Amino acid sequence: MGLFSKDIQTMDDLFVHTLQDIYYAENKIAQSLPDMISKASNPELKQGLQSHLQETKGHVQRLEKVFQMLNMQASAVDCPAIDGILEEADDVSSEVEDKAVLDAAIVASGQAVEHYEITRYGSLIAWANEMGRKDVADLLSTTLAEEKAADQKLTMVAEQRVNRRAQSARA
Amino acid sequence: MGLFSKDIQTMDDLFVHTLQDIYYAENKIAQSLPDMISKASNPELKQGLQSHLQETKGHVQRLEKVFQMLNMQASAVDCPAIDGILEEADDVSSEVEDKAVLDAAIVASGQAVEHYEITRYGSLIAWANEMGRKDVADLLSTTLAEEKAADQKLTMVAEQRVNRRAQSARA
Repeated sequence: MGLFSKDIQTMDDLFVHTLQDIYYAENKIAQSLPDMISKASNPELKQGLQSHLQETKGHVQRLEKVFQMLNMQASAVDCPAIDGILEEADDVSSEVEDKAVLDAAIVASGQAVEHYEITRYGSLIAWANEMGRKDVADLLSTTLAEEKAADQKLTMVAEQRVNRRAQSARA
Repeated sequence: MGLFSKDIQTMDDLFVHTLQDIYYAENKIAQSLPDMISKASNPELKQGLQSHLQETKGHVQRLEKVFQMLNMQASAVDCPAIDGILEEADDVSSEVEDKAVLDAAIVASGQAVEHYEITRYGSLIAWANEMGRKDVADLLSTTLAEEKAADQKLTMVAEQRVNRRAQSARA
């Protein structure tokens, strides 16, 4: 924060600040996913989170590429939002013992993380287009598509679990 | 948190915990919106946030109705996720002076809030259906539709701003 002036003066500044925010968030998510993976029981959920961890490492590299394209060093700013979302995920999962209930909690936490990323990439892409940087918007759009696919995969895992439960109740 | 046992044992417990989480979040959002409204300049943005404040008060009442349907007293648990999202919104907006840039930041913050609510209501609706409580799922679905509409309205406000800027650049 500037001592005498406000630090975000232009749309370019707002873009860079949000880029630094999601750069912090992606790194934090990459650090947190191994714990979620170790707690998950459902094989599809475990495998889905595992492949999303690889994707997340790719998202970090893609953000570093965006910083390069803007002739900047990659850097992060604190992101209280992702800290709060991950803290809540950890709080809830530490309160659950039953494996099926824990899987449901992990799916919900994973979707909260995905939705945070979806909204931030959505804003960044709109602003990149506004600034005439279609090259940057296109690169970020690739990541956004992967975040949306990860969210849908989590929904599918949840639905399969519900369907299996319904089938075993009928059996 | 229990001293000797984990507190979330069943899907019912996970549902109630998440209901208490979003009840805290909706109340916190209702408290935070007046500040966002006072900082916004764009008339459509100001009016959109104003009508969402009224909707949010309705969402709180609808959650109280859900607690009633489950024969429970409405109560809240801390929600570090929404605390973090709102803290970040406040941090960013306090760094921006230019009115158009501030409006863009408020739209992005508003969308981060909406996406958090969308993901939590999505999980709650899936779990309510799983527990055979279609009545509860239907009530929560009404709120989810309003959250999605609020998110889309924010996207429209952002697009109109971009279009106006593009038009004035051509003039």
